[in-house]
Amino acid sequence: MITQEMAAGRFVRQPNRFTDTITADGSSGYPAESGRYRLFVSYACPWAQRTLIVRALLGLDEVISLGVVDPIRDERGWRFPDRDPVTGAAFLSELYLATDGSYKGRYTVPCIWDTVTGRLVTNDFPAITTTFETQFTDYHPTGAPDLYPVELRPDIDELNELVYATVNNGVYRAGFATEQNAYEEAVDALFATLDRLEERLSTRRYLFGDRVTEADIRLYTTLARFDAVYHGHFKCNLRRLVDYPNLWGYARDLYEQPAFRDTTDFDQIKRHYYVTLTNVNPSGVVPKGPVVDWTEPHGRAALSAS
Amino acid sequence: MITQEMAAGRFVRQPNRFTDTITADGSSGYPAESGRYRLFVSYACPWAQRTLIVRALLGLDEVISLGVVDPIRDERGWRFPDRDPVTGAAFLSELYLATDGSYKGRYTVPCIWDTVTGRLVTNDFPAITTTFETQFTDYHPTGAPDLYPVELRPDIDELNELVYATVNNGVYRAGFATEQNAYEEAVDALFATLDRLEERLSTRRYLFGDRVTEADIRLYTTLARFDAVYHGHFKCNLRRLVDYPNLWGYARDLYEQPAFRDTTDFDQIKRHYYVTLTNVNPSGVVPKGPVVDWTEPHGRAALSAS
Repeated sequence: MITQEMAAGRFVRQPNRFTDTITADGSSGYPAESGRYRLFVSYACPWAQRTLIVRALLGLDEVISLGVVDPIRDERGWRFPDRDPVTGAAFLSELYLATDGSYKGRYTVPCIWDTVTGRLVTNDFPAITTTFETQFTDYHPTGAPDLYPVELRPDIDELNELVYATVNNGVYRAGFATEQNAYEEAVDALFATLDRLEERLSTRRYLFGDRVTEADIRLYTTLARFDAVYHGHFKCNLRRLVDYPNLWGYARDLYEQPAFRDTTDFDQIKRHYYVTLTNVNPSGVVPKGPVVDWTEPHGRAALSAS
Repeated sequence: MITQEMAAGRFVRQPNRFTDTITADGSSGYPAESGRYRLFVSYACPWAQRTLIVRALLGLDEVISLGVVDPIRDERGWRFPDRDPVTGAAFLSELYLATDGSYKGRYTVPCIWDTVTGRLVTNDFPAITTTFETQFTDYHPTGAPDLYPVELRPDIDELNELVYATVNNGVYRAGFATEQNAYEEAVDALFATLDRLEERLSTRRYLFGDRVTEADIRLYTTLARFDAVYHGHFKCNLRRLVDYPNLWGYARDLYEQPAFRDTTDFDQIKRHYYVTLTNVNPSGVVPKGPVVDWTEPHGRAALSAS
């Protein structure tokens, strides 16, 4: 179906089709249990990296198992380097079609598989991290951070909405635009938000003060890909991340933390975008640059009250 | 013909086909005369901009007339916004085919047309600037600079050779590579030379000291396109021009001079590359960035002895 949006050269992300939920009390039919669910991700994908960071920060590594697809997608979609040992799948599509044989959409990561019913529970990426945060609390170790504090949720949700529309998805709207106007609309909105965030981070260590929240995780996974991919490949090139002193220090501050650093694989990120998206980069050649030091001191701790 | 080079995914520039010369003494059959020759250029093209800069610096505007093609090329090649008033051509190809009906190569700028014989004299771009410098001296106004001083020619030629292979043409070798190895070979050589030039320019205002020479003009036209086009579009992204303090100051020092500034059209440059080269950029969308100030003070005069 060609929508009016598409006709104007705009990129429109498909709605998520699998939107069942896992609940602490089991009322949804999918009770939060240890060892029952399997998370499928690509290290290349910003939506998937969110779930990896939250899983690590909340100590859920032993509670929710992990299946990782190869960063290079072909016309059959995401594939496993070897068959997934738990489900036996060679391609992610098998899990989608086993759940709904009539599914015609894209096979996306992240998604969660239920090993008990043998069904895909959800590929609704914004809900996966908040599910880990709010429905798996019985499995959080002592001292685990509260990434989605009740009192901040309305503000976090509001900021996330802006960041999703203009930044997380904004880079795709810029990169996949096929008309100049659609591109310019996306790139202007993207940098307007980055400018606002730069200002916001001049007085706060993280988006909501001294502690890392869901909002930081969502922003981070786009920032981690910004100069390496979005700046050139997606033409998000008014400025680079490294040209924003606060945003760049903030990104390095997060990268210093193992949950962020260990789930950030620049090689897989670059190869995925540049090799897979031949509509944007026909040669499939992967740029060597930029040369950037993510480990240089960031000095952001001075902004913390504690 | 597929050469071995091409088979390895390397870009190979076609040899220049029209290589007659204009001489001060007329011994070549094409005597240097005022009002006789017409230079065809695109403002987008780095090889053509060289000739525009030299023509301006040497005060040859009234001696050699100018025809300018549209920055957007289609499958018929370079075209004139309106028919060229002197030759009547609608496309540059007409001038090539009028001279040699069997010509099968690309129709390139810059090239020089002789209005007396009605023939294309040359599209041999490296020879055009040195012809202006050495064969049109009778028409240089008093006080015109010597851009190609006899005593420096061996050194200028040697540096030009390195700059051509790794920088001027190196960016094309990177951008048009269709194999990873060919790209990496080109981009490594490019940045190795830029690193050397950065060092060289730490103690010299221009490449050969206090005066602008042919070598500076050849380097400048690539630097002017670097961050705007080559960095993203051609994947020359280890570093940007603005990340090299000496090269960036040097480029702004030259840009401050009218012969450089008035022949540098960033809008035409960006539109040409991003719209024309659909093998590299299928959408034809032109990036808005980068935001760069070419007029900020460069402080390079301190390096001059004079």
